[in-house]
Amino acid sequence: MIIYKANDNWFGDIKHLAKSWTMVRVMRTVLFFGVYTTIVWLLHLNFFPEKDQSVINSAFSFLGVVLSILLVFRTNSAYDRWWEGRKQWGALINNTRNLAVYAHTILPKEDKGIRFYLAVRISNFCHAMVEHLRQGTDLDQLIHLTESDHKKYGKRAHVPNAITHEIYETIVHQHREKLITDPDLINYGPLHKSLLDIIGACERIKKTPIPFSYAVFMKVFISTYGLLLPFALAPQMAFWSIPVVMLVMFAFVGIELMGEEIEDPFGLDCNNLPTGDMANTIQNNVFEIFELDEEVVKNAERKLYDKVF
Amino acid sequence: MIIYKANDNWFGDIKHLAKSWTMVRVMRTVLFFGVYTTIVWLLHLNFFPEKDQSVINSAFSFLGVVLSILLVFRTNSAYDRWWEGRKQWGALINNTRNLAVYAHTILPKEDKGIRFYLAVRISNFCHAMVEHLRQGTDLDQLIHLTESDHKKYGKRAHVPNAITHEIYETIVHQHREKLITDPDLINYGPLHKSLLDIIGACERIKKTPIPFSYAVFMKVFISTYGLLLPFALAPQMAFWSIPVVMLVMFAFVGIELMGEEIEDPFGLDCNNLPTGDMANTIQNNVFEIFELDEEVVKNAERKLYDKVF
Amino acid sequence: MIIYKANDNWFGDIKHLAKSWTMVRVMRTVLFFGVYTTIVWLLHLNFFPEKDQSVINSAFSFLGVVLSILLVFRTNSAYDRWWEGRKQWGALINNTRNLAVYAHTILPKEDKGIRFYLAVRISNFCHAMVEHLRQGTDLDQLIHLTESDHKKYGKRAHVPNAITHEIYETIVHQHREKLITDPDLINYGPLHKSLLDIIGACERIKKTPIPFSYAVFMKVFISTYGLLLPFALAPQMAFWSIPVVMLVMFAFVGIELMGEEIEDPFGLDCNNLPTGDMANTIQNNVFEIFELDEEVVKNAERKLYDKVF
Amino acid sequence: MIIYKANDNWFGDIKHLAKSWTMVRVMRTVLFFGVYTTIVWLLHLNFFPEKDQSVINSAFSFLGVVLSILLVFRTNSAYDRWWEGRKQWGALINNTRNLAVYAHTILPKEDKGIRFYLAVRISNFCHAMVEHLRQGTDLDQLIHLTESDHKKYGKRAHVPNAITHEIYETIVHQHREKLITDPDLINYGPLHKSLLDIIGACERIKKTPIPFSYAVFMKVFISTYGLLLPFALAPQMAFWSIPVVMLVMFAFVGIELMGEEIEDPFGLDCNNLPTGDMANTIQNNVFEIFELDEEVVKNAERKLYDKVF
Amino acid sequence: MIIYKANDNWFGDIKHLAKSWTMVRVMRTVLFFGVYTTIVWLLHLNFFPEKDQSVINSAFSFLGVVLSILLVFRTNSAYDRWWEGRKQWGALINNTRNLAVYAHTILPKEDKGIRFYLAVRISNFCHAMVEHLRQGTDLDQLIHLTESDHKKYGKRAHVPNAITHEIYETIVHQHREKLITDPDLINYGPLHKSLLDIIGACERIKKTPIPFSYAVFMKVFISTYGLLLPFALAPQMAFWSIPVVMLVMFAFVGIELMGEEIEDPFGLDCNNLPTGDMANTIQNNVFEIFELDEEVVKNAERKLYDKVF
Repeated sequence: MIIYKANDNWFGDIKHLAKSWTMVRVMRTVLFFGVYTTIVWLLHLNFFPEKDQSVINSAFSFLGVVLSILLVFRTNSAYDRWWEGRKQWGALINNTRNLAVYAHTILPKEDKGIRFYLAVRISNFCHAMVEHLRQGTDLDQLIHLTESDHKKYGKRAHVPNAITHEIYETIVHQHREKLITDPDLINYGPLHKSLLDIIGACERIKKTPIPFSYAVFMKVFISTYGLLLPFALAPQMAFWSIPVVMLVMFAFVGIELMGEEIEDPFGLDCNNLPTGDMANTIQNNVFEIFELDEEVVKNAERKLYDKVF
Repeated sequence: MIIYKANDNWFGDIKHLAKSWTMVRVMRTVLFFGVYTTIVWLLHLNFFPEKDQSVINSAFSFLGVVLSILLVFRTNSAYDRWWEGRKQWGALINNTRNLAVYAHTILPKEDKGIRFYLAVRISNFCHAMVEHLRQGTDLDQLIHLTESDHKKYGKRAHVPNAITHEIYETIVHQHREKLITDPDLINYGPLHKSLLDIIGACERIKKTPIPFSYAVFMKVFISTYGLLLPFALAPQMAFWSIPVVMLVMFAFVGIELMGEEIEDPFGLDCNNLPTGDMANTIQNNVFEIFELDEEVVKNAERKLYDKVF
Repeated sequence: MIIYKANDNWFGDIKHLAKSWTMVRVMRTVLFFGVYTTIVWLLHLNFFPEKDQSVINSAFSFLGVVLSILLVFRTNSAYDRWWEGRKQWGALINNTRNLAVYAHTILPKEDKGIRFYLAVRISNFCHAMVEHLRQGTDLDQLIHLTESDHKKYGKRAHVPNAITHEIYETIVHQHREKLITDPDLINYGPLHKSLLDIIGACERIKKTPIPFSYAVFMKVFISTYGLLLPFALAPQMAFWSIPVVMLVMFAFVGIELMGEEIEDPFGLDCNNLPTGDMANTIQNNVFEIFELDEEVVKNAERKLYDKVF
Repeated sequence: MIIYKANDNWFGDIKHLAKSWTMVRVMRTVLFFGVYTTIVWLLHLNFFPEKDQSVINSAFSFLGVVLSILLVFRTNSAYDRWWEGRKQWGALINNTRNLAVYAHTILPKEDKGIRFYLAVRISNFCHAMVEHLRQGTDLDQLIHLTESDHKKYGKRAHVPNAITHEIYETIVHQHREKLITDPDLINYGPLHKSLLDIIGACERIKKTPIPFSYAVFMKVFISTYGLLLPFALAPQMAFWSIPVVMLVMFAFVGIELMGEEIEDPFGLDCNNLPTGDMANTIQNNVFEIFELDEEVVKNAERKLYDKVF
Repeated sequence: MIIYKANDNWFGDIKHLAKSWTMVRVMRTVLFFGVYTTIVWLLHLNFFPEKDQSVINSAFSFLGVVLSILLVFRTNSAYDRWWEGRKQWGALINNTRNLAVYAHTILPKEDKGIRFYLAVRISNFCHAMVEHLRQGTDLDQLIHLTESDHKKYGKRAHVPNAITHEIYETIVHQHREKLITDPDLINYGPLHKSLLDIIGACERIKKTPIPFSYAVFMKVFISTYGLLLPFALAPQMAFWSIPVVMLVMFAFVGIELMGEEIEDPFGLDCNNLPTGDMANTIQNNVFEIFELDEEVVKNAERKLYDKVF
């Protein structure tokens, strides 16, 4: 994701344009329509110089309004996925912090081992989730994996499920040993539940693009519209039809392609969410909250920079 | 559902067009309007060649804007149902996972029987739901049904209700036997509640299309509009009225029919949700979480591939 | 409510048109404007045959866009009430099922009496709610009312409140008698709470139409617009102004009247929710879940068909 | 609030027009623009009778579309506040009922005193909230205030906070005395929490109008647009420019002023919520649910009609 | 934030215009386009006085509709962030009040020390959050910091996390000492959880502006549109093109810049939320609810006015 400061500098933002892969595709398509319109105009100039079709022009203007209303729907539904994805990761940050604060408070004060165990598990849940939402969990992204962890996780199709179970088992074990009380476990329940709710919601966003018919419908409509438009405009506007067609197609192709890009916000494109960074932030937060010893933390940190990037 | 990768290949998507039943209907309607416009144009050419009605043209352009705003409302409300249906199935995946993780953690470690019992019940709840949202539960879709289960479920009008009761009864029985603690049962409550909430929400989506008046209103409006439009355009645009009418009707009929299709997302059309696949995913997840023995799992898997598809 | 199958038959739906009371009103208004436009046109033809006002035409087209954007707001807010009403009734179905499943599981197995008592109370809550949302609870709609129930409910202004109290009292009494445990009562709490939340939300929808100013504003705007439009169109479009004005008024009056109709979804109009049927469905579900004896169920069923319809 | 029946009588609603203060303001502004346009037209007729500027006309039509899209945003955000305010008061009704039903069920059966104490406190919370959302709590609106209550509340800046504390203290005291059980207190928790959540949400709506820049932006845009429009229309439309400008300004000024009015729904304007009536409804409901003795109720009722209206 | 009374005085609001930094920027840009259009018009007048391009005009009008639909999306998503930020701060007010009411009720009546400790911590959580959402927590904004607090917080990257832990530890300690009961701790859980949920949601809003591609896309579109528009309008409208271009750019640049400004609502611009004031309100509320002694309160108040502003 390109990090930028809103409300700062109008032209400063524009100059990042070439960095966005989607924008490059949009620009290429716009150029194609520029060339195409020039050809249509020149052909027209040479072969039918007398014809006037001002009404067709108005028909295309109306069709353009219809199309732009459709594209708003397209944009809204894509943006909602992107924003919901962001909300889920935000909720992950909140919940892991809360989980750590609760656990740190209720667990026996002197037991550093269980704190380290939980901090590693919570961090690994997030690191596993990052790649799980791309091509499947990569165990090398996880921190502090012992031999046996590696073997155990390796056998599982869904690693975050396994980690969640380990975390809950630890807490329930403490409860069975009377080290934490009944209300502690009851308050802990919803925090724990949210971990799998969040990963499930992200899986849903990743796996469900806009219904296929809509995706195809828009592409057919935009393509047809773009190919017919120069025929309607060139006779009348002459040279001016070129910038107008280009500006129109910039709007339509741009909105469609940006919608497609942000629809799956967990990839590595420039508009996607910085999920890797967020997982690192969570790890730092969790280790800080558990107030783990210097050496333990440093150990973890080293792992962090070795493995995660 | 056609599985497709968004943001990949513009023309690759378009070529799937013919696979979508709705798109085929749209195309047929558009062709009809193409032929119809040709006839109107030819009649006009031969009988009233002198008349010019440029203002009617603008009236239809304005009516088209009104209609397209209506269709946005139509699309939004249909899409919301589709997306809510998807969310409910996503919530089902999350909740069954959480249910399994909680049960696996709190139940006595050595009791494999109860784990198998629960894994089968949770899976069957989902398999029953798939068909319940089509034409009514088909008991042959369920796995590991014993004779008595078959008889018991056969008598029930609403099978998922019965399964839910069995699951809760098992957990409550464990609680009465002091095998699980008070906080365990309290944390379990909301997870259990969500099962019937989800199936109820899906029933609501299935049973409540857009209010009847709106559905009829749009059809009357689109039909009238489409039948009058060629009379307004043909006098002026001549040959060009044919592609313009076709593009307009492609937009309007397409949006209306796609709205109708995705409004009930639990069927078997190409835009519907892959509920059968999701039920299988849930089954795999649940059996994995309960860490059931090889042979038990294999048994279940065999059943799975025999029965569900 | 007219039950219809979406995505089935374009013209099949249109032929139900005359059954919708709102549609009849819309059609009558549209006819009025047809006659009115004819008169304006004929007057114009005879008295000011020379005048051309093409610009006024464009002003009305723009005003129409403004109005149609307003009507989208109108439609959205009315539809949201209708859909929220449907959601609340869906939630009622879910919660009564969950209530019955929970109660059936936790209550002493042999106590059929309490199950019958609860099944009757839950069903009556729903039957009372149906009429409560129309003109006030009609005690004759309730099932299995004893003499004393009748007297007790008769004195209450808000019968569902009284029924809710009876249900909760029964459960709490079981808890005081140690027949159900602490976690049972804790899990039961939110289920119970939802009963009054649902009826309260429905009361809110029923009692709060769109703010008065908006309702009047739209009527004034549509009336003025419709009465001036023929003057703007007739001079230029002549005969064609009649279908155009009729189509425009069909759109505007139709959207306004449909919005008014679905705004209060608990009545008996053809677009209203089938709340009576839903209450019966709930009764059937609840009696099935409690697995009540044949004779008890039959008894209840008889009552059901005698009284509710 | 004007109580009106939707879907009843088209012209019946229109005749209430003059009762709405906002509508009166709108009408006055529309009249102003009518006079202003007449002046512009007459000036034009006398000084520049030859000029034709049909294109400016189309520019204003396009600017009008931009403005009307902005006003939809304005209307939606204002209406959302109004509707959320209504939802919060609806939630208050639900929660006070639930609170009363819970308390009535769990408290010792013979203790009428505590029921009266709670009924008064719950009612007073609502009565206090009505004025708190206007100019600050007026203690004279509260019922059954003893001398010491009066003194205690008088010293507090935020009276509802104090009442909430009294209610919770009573319940917790019962719990400490073992008169209610652990699950009773746990189930009571969320009901209690909602009281302050509701008043907080209403405070938020009251204190946060639309961001200042937007409010000013719209006023500048509408004023400029309205003052320039007659210059664009008068040259061409002549006399017709007067009704057209008036209808346009009716739409724009009307939407803007109605938005401003409903944005703060807790005042005493004709579109505001009937919060005083709702508080009385709550009082009646709560006293009925607690089944208080005739004389106690009558006492309360007298107070009710003396003080609240 | 400029505090203003909605629905009061049309022109009174407009005169605050110059106070808004965003409005000043908008006005400057509009002036630039005024000058630019004048130059284009004068050039045209001198070099191509004969050319007429009325159709280009209509193309720009259509492009303007497309752009304004995009800007509605822009406005909605920015406004949603602003409003969600406001809701989160509203929720903070509600939750801190509820936290204080709960704690004040359940804690041992005579223990003033713990009340003061909690009141300070809750207030400091809010004061820390104000600056945390700007450039990072400024410890000088916190009240009643002891030496050791200062040192402890100074070492933490995320101070609110640390404060949250202190609050929860105090409550849990009371529970371990049997000074509060199990249900007290269970009811307290969700209140506590919300503190970190709220700060996390605000961090999400602050750190995630609209996706980069959209931000750039709009700037490119508006710039190109604004630079080409005078060429399309000047030939026909002559002098009139200057106010029209200025009004159009006022709309487009204004909506874009206002969107950018309110997108991050936690800064110090004139449309931002008064978070500092809200933190003070919370402090006053919390100290009042805990009914702390005169001297303690005064002490706190002094601190309040010394430090926070």
